[in-house]
Amino acid sequence: MMNSDAAPFPGTFGEETAPLYTDLYQLTMLQAYWREGMDETAVFDLFVRRLKDRNYLLACGLEQALEYLEELSFSEEALTYLAAQDQFSDDFLTWLEDFEFTGDVYAVPEGTPVFPDEPLVEVVAPIGEAQLAETFLLNQITFQTMIASKAVRVVEAARGGDSERLVADFGMRRMHGTDASMKAARAAYIAGVDATSNVAAGQAYDLPITGTMAHSYIEAHDSEMDAFREFAELYPETILLVDTYDTISGVKKVIELAEEKGDDFQVRGIRLDSGDLAELAKESRRLLDQAGLTDMMIFASSGLDEYKIRGLLDREAPIDGFGVGTKMGTSADQPTLDSAYKLCGYAGTPRMKLSSKKSNLPGRKQVIRQYENGTAVRDVIATVEDPPPGASLLERVMARGTRTEAGVPRPLESIREHAAARVAELPDRLRALDRSEKGYDVALSDAMEGRLEETRQRLERTM
Amino acid sequence: MMNSDAAPFPGTFGEETAPLYTDLYQLTMLQAYWREGMDETAVFDLFVRRLKDRNYLLACGLEQALEYLEELSFSEEALTYLAAQDQFSDDFLTWLEDFEFTGDVYAVPEGTPVFPDEPLVEVVAPIGEAQLAETFLLNQITFQTMIASKAVRVVEAARGGDSERLVADFGMRRMHGTDASMKAARAAYIAGVDATSNVAAGQAYDLPITGTMAHSYIEAHDSEMDAFREFAELYPETILLVDTYDTISGVKKVIELAEEKGDDFQVRGIRLDSGDLAELAKESRRLLDQAGLTDMMIFASSGLDEYKIRGLLDREAPIDGFGVGTKMGTSADQPTLDSAYKLCGYAGTPRMKLSSKKSNLPGRKQVIRQYENGTAVRDVIATVEDPPPGASLLERVMARGTRTEAGVPRPLESIREHAAARVAELPDRLRALDRSEKGYDVALSDAMEGRLEETRQRLERTM
Repeated sequence: MMNSDAAPFPGTFGEETAPLYTDLYQLTMLQAYWREGMDETAVFDLFVRRLKDRNYLLACGLEQALEYLEELSFSEEALTYLAAQDQFSDDFLTWLEDFEFTGDVYAVPEGTPVFPDEPLVEVVAPIGEAQLAETFLLNQITFQTMIASKAVRVVEAARGGDSERLVADFGMRRMHGTDASMKAARAAYIAGVDATSNVAAGQAYDLPITGTMAHSYIEAHDSEMDAFREFAELYPETILLVDTYDTISGVKKVIELAEEKGDDFQVRGIRLDSGDLAELAKESRRLLDQAGLTDMMIFASSGLDEYKIRGLLDREAPIDGFGVGTKMGTSADQPTLDSAYKLCGYAGTPRMKLSSKKSNLPGRKQVIRQYENGTAVRDVIATVEDPPPGASLLERVMARGTRTEAGVPRPLESIREHAAARVAELPDRLRALDRSEKGYDVALSDAMEGRLEETRQRLERTM
Repeated sequence: MMNSDAAPFPGTFGEETAPLYTDLYQLTMLQAYWREGMDETAVFDLFVRRLKDRNYLLACGLEQALEYLEELSFSEEALTYLAAQDQFSDDFLTWLEDFEFTGDVYAVPEGTPVFPDEPLVEVVAPIGEAQLAETFLLNQITFQTMIASKAVRVVEAARGGDSERLVADFGMRRMHGTDASMKAARAAYIAGVDATSNVAAGQAYDLPITGTMAHSYIEAHDSEMDAFREFAELYPETILLVDTYDTISGVKKVIELAEEKGDDFQVRGIRLDSGDLAELAKESRRLLDQAGLTDMMIFASSGLDEYKIRGLLDREAPIDGFGVGTKMGTSADQPTLDSAYKLCGYAGTPRMKLSSKKSNLPGRKQVIRQYENGTAVRDVIATVEDPPPGASLLERVMARGTRTEAGVPRPLESIREHAAARVAELPDRLRALDRSEKGYDVALSDAMEGRLEETRQRLERTM
């Protein structure tokens, strides 16, 4: 049964219970580390193991991770809940009262393209603190990176060469809950999407908000023409939805309205939301141009993703903007990333998992991006002590629990510009929608190879 | 840039901005309806158009929808944001100050199996109110229904006949944001999952919470044996993770620990998290039994879903419980439902959309489930005035903005029992994992057929 104290608004959980936003085992392990006096520094890497149907990922979600680490503490309400679980001792719960995150965090800036095995975030902190943060960090960074990585593909498909075609996020209604729709709007904007229909996200992140009208508005009026007339009266520069009954009849009514209003007609465009969008766009364009409405824009929506947009543009559909919903907002063709948060070091010794394919690279790292003529040609995952020449991707964003200058929240516009600039440096084959067979060269430095082998041998001797 | 007033905790948005949790066009249409004096009663249906790879859906999310409708109002903060958008007039914003939801809501109880075109929720309210609620209702009910519908399959696969095999939700780290992981834990529990690793969900919904240990805990210790010994000392009835270095060696260490501790050994089980789980489970079982540890349970995790669980059990893997994560928590094979919220009536007249395949059934409805020998054999979507014999699925849960007795929050246990009982009434072919070719018979009543045809003809004359 719902605990009425828990959620101030349906769809949220409150600040009071934020420290409980974790897997139970993080808390039982935290108590074990505390009981055993294990408080030495651990290194945890957050990385993605495989790309699957992406040529690169666009890192996103760091800002929320840092906010969480800054604010992490146990409220009385959280402690009361834990006390009721019969697994936690009173002295441990007392110790939790003063718990805070005191570690260092290194991270790739949001909006940076990344590749498998490269740490997006490296947490260097007393082991219990770093362990507890795993679940929230994975949750936010996996999701936001997944959405940014999907949205950048949609933007690439829509913009083609240097077109000005617009892309709007229309996905909130079928995203996975409220937080998803907030963070996806943010991630999509970073990836180059122009606006969102999500008003709360507009408010929270200062994003451009956009929208047209729904079929229900048309249907509630006595006729489509009445609905168009009323809506354009109130919102002169609106976009009219023309497919409620029959798309081409709808377009003709828009033209009729233009003739009716003469110089007062300021409607910016029409939206197509069903049927063969390429054919309908062409026929609509022809009718609009014929009527002298050459500035009227044509927007399209309805089950769009990067592949459908490419298909429409390959057919030379005269579409000026796309409303992209569910398939972008759930990253429907790949609704998860194979992300991991792995212990790489403890008490000064590199650590790793040996079994099966789920291993990790031991020790602290730096990722170096190497360029030729302005194009990224190779990344090297190096030991932090021994980086080869090139641009370092990991920055220290938090020191002893406090944000460094590199960790100060960045304006979304600047993250978006960073993303566009970094994506522009990628080879064309990675920016294409289809999977690049050649892929991208991610190498281990010699020192990293050496440490990997050394750690493996040590573990095989001692396990 | 993040508006620091907006989110009290990263991953949430506050009560203050809840009314903004909608698509912009809902607000522009609301103003248009208000300006035009259109305040007559509308009927909106929330339904799913297609099942795709499911044989039925398990309705879920109504409780959060009702909480939202009960609390829907515009705070000063929300109004200030809207005032800054240059689309909303002062008199409209003043009117919004007193806005509340005053309508009726009819709904299928949570945990009820439903089929395409059947309304999960029917909102009957002044059109602007019903319109505004679209986005939140779709967001919550689509997601929760999708997860419950996936989780019930996982449970069917794990339990097989009448086994006691446990299923735990381990998915929070890769679910889509914080709200998803809260609501998914709730939906999965309703569907029959036994526990969640999500502590915040445990607290908010009073769910059983569970967890074992992570590889990092093992790796941080000097040896696997040390880690097992320490963890079992603190948590005598724990489950030990045996695959960090080599699964069979891990099992042997557990046996060693049992010998070491003798009668004090109370460890409940081991967890396998990589490799060929069926083979490893058989070998582990053999070793444990040989050592007299016949009560030790074997838990498995690692990329599980209903198909992998079936595969393991088909190979007679002696597994007693499954930790199921990402694939259940994102409904990875079908990460969205084709849900819709459509105007079916306004001012006493049935309404519908004509174009292409995205139509809807006009007017108010009842869904009747008909049984033969205790098995559901047919649903009939009927006009509300003319229901055929059978069990009515839609109940009035809200009247004039207030919950009715049927709408009072139900204990999660009782929703879970309702779900189990209703699923047990379905034909076996629908409960199977594979898509039933025969499917289920969902008919329209004669009166509904008549209304559909009549409405279509009227619209074709007048559009």
